[in-house]
Amino acid sequence: MKKLFVKSLLILLLLVNTVFAAEPLPSWNDTASRQAIITFVEQVTQEGSPNFVPIPERIATFDNDGTLWSEQPMYSQDYFVIDRIKALAPQHPEWKLKQPFKAVLENDMKAIAGLSWPAFQELIMATHAGCSTEEFAQIVKDWAATAKHPQTGRLYTDMVFQPMLELLSYLRDNGFTTYMVTGANQEFVRPWAEKVYGFLPEQIIGSNLKLNYELRNGEPVIIQMPEYVLMVDNVGKPAAINQYIGRRPIASFGNSDGDLQMLQWTTAGSGLRLGLLVHHTDAVREWGYDRTSDVGKLDKALDAAKAKGWTVVDMKNDWKIIHPFEKKQN
Amino acid sequence: MKKLFVKSLLILLLLVNTVFAAEPLPSWNDTASRQAIITFVEQVTQEGSPNFVPIPERIATFDNDGTLWSEQPMYSQDYFVIDRIKALAPQHPEWKLKQPFKAVLENDMKAIAGLSWPAFQELIMATHAGCSTEEFAQIVKDWAATAKHPQTGRLYTDMVFQPMLELLSYLRDNGFTTYMVTGANQEFVRPWAEKVYGFLPEQIIGSNLKLNYELRNGEPVIIQMPEYVLMVDNVGKPAAINQYIGRRPIASFGNSDGDLQMLQWTTAGSGLRLGLLVHHTDAVREWGYDRTSDVGKLDKALDAAKAKGWTVVDMKNDWKIIHPFEKKQN
Repeated sequence: MKKLFVKSLLILLLLVNTVFAAEPLPSWNDTASRQAIITFVEQVTQEGSPNFVPIPERIATFDNDGTLWSEQPMYSQDYFVIDRIKALAPQHPEWKLKQPFKAVLENDMKAIAGLSWPAFQELIMATHAGCSTEEFAQIVKDWAATAKHPQTGRLYTDMVFQPMLELLSYLRDNGFTTYMVTGANQEFVRPWAEKVYGFLPEQIIGSNLKLNYELRNGEPVIIQMPEYVLMVDNVGKPAAINQYIGRRPIASFGNSDGDLQMLQWTTAGSGLRLGLLVHHTDAVREWGYDRTSDVGKLDKALDAAKAKGWTVVDMKNDWKIIHPFEKKQN
Repeated sequence: MKKLFVKSLLILLLLVNTVFAAEPLPSWNDTASRQAIITFVEQVTQEGSPNFVPIPERIATFDNDGTLWSEQPMYSQDYFVIDRIKALAPQHPEWKLKQPFKAVLENDMKAIAGLSWPAFQELIMATHAGCSTEEFAQIVKDWAATAKHPQTGRLYTDMVFQPMLELLSYLRDNGFTTYMVTGANQEFVRPWAEKVYGFLPEQIIGSNLKLNYELRNGEPVIIQMPEYVLMVDNVGKPAAINQYIGRRPIASFGNSDGDLQMLQWTTAGSGLRLGLLVHHTDAVREWGYDRTSDVGKLDKALDAAKAKGWTVVDMKNDWKIIHPFEKKQN
């Protein structure tokens, strides 16, 4: 009796949701990319369709840098590292003479861009490790609320892609659980990702420093240690998806070769699957780059997209606007 | 308009749920333990209460071995390892003469119980590593459907605790998201945990072997490698909770010193918190053990429970029945 009643109400709820639903993806031009998304969602959500997928299995995974927000000319986490090194410098007078810190303090962007991964890791450890996850979350929140991109003068969190925000909402409205799967440090993303994108903390999968549980002054805390234990890029993306979610996604969204394996893994599953790459073709409204870019290189994955029939979004032609602030200007 | 309509329906749904709700925790005697649980849940779910907690923050974490099912005289994963070594032995004639495999093949339970952790790890690697996560899931499913506990003759998945199943349902009915946080291998638990307990794969947090993504015959697979990269026990429990969930639970449930730090971490948060330990006091219906047991030792955590005011469940006196099969016999 109770179950029947609850079920009837749930069906009513879904009906109301459908009847009142606005046209999805309003910032997308009505091109093949938009059609591919809508066809996929309609197929997997239609009861009785051979492609129907039950709600708990409607898992969609999104890369962040270059897929949900801009990543040029450097990842936002790298800008955070630079800003943070500068903020911490007064406590570290030795940094003035010591690389790679010296390059940061002298604002030598060319040297910073050319740093080796071990050298850049030194900067990450100096800015991310040592404090508790709760202290770090506050530092990141304060930074995200005030720090501005050096070229656009915008808050980093304003440089998100409006069409992708609409895609996230559209999928969630259709029973999908959406996850971010990012090479960035998980603790760097979680503090602002719910407000900006609607991802709950447990829906953020990112690279991890070792986490140590300890008592400080009798209070339990979790401390980030200066050692990477999980890298969520390339082959690390499907592995991390398996670790955290334990299911293969039915849809994945990326923009670079770092997302290739995630899209491979997703689209190799049985049944209808959606693989989508955001191609940065709009040098006027955002940045134009692909096969030869140092950041967000899209080369092998672009070839794979052709071979596998993945959807490639042409930002210039598929998107009416790119950023939410363009909408406000209209 | 749409939002208002949907919200009204949701409220109606919750009301219906409340009106039709049966008395919670029917297999619990009406002792202090049951009262502590109900009072906690009523407080954190009552809108306007100073202890009210919004639904996304209602996170509850459960240990598995000894908390949700029996763990004596050995963890079920250990029995799986033994059964699996025997099943694989024909392909490994050298095991007959080689420890620790020899002890297993000779059914020398005393020697097995006395194995060092590195020696036991050899058995785990030989049985868990090398195959894909999908192949391994099938092996585990087949085992769980047929393997029987050597002392009780029951399926391991029948040796779960009925009062804890009711507790899981009660929390979920009240908007909690429930997670299992176990020292056992995650890939060993996920294949049957949804059917047995209602945990979705993404709600299982367990110890992890390294996961490698690779192409086998052109097909992407994820392979378990013979190397532990995450141990989810003791201090590893709050760290893994931070890694996977990114929030501090408001309620945690355990039964041994391996759960001490998880309960510390949970109950040290601000606002109302629930820490609960299952104390194995019923040697007739299950097993009786605590401070001196090799498996599921409950010593420091029992002292901490007194000091911190955590609820300690006396299985003998707090639970009307222990296993679901007792219910069927009534």
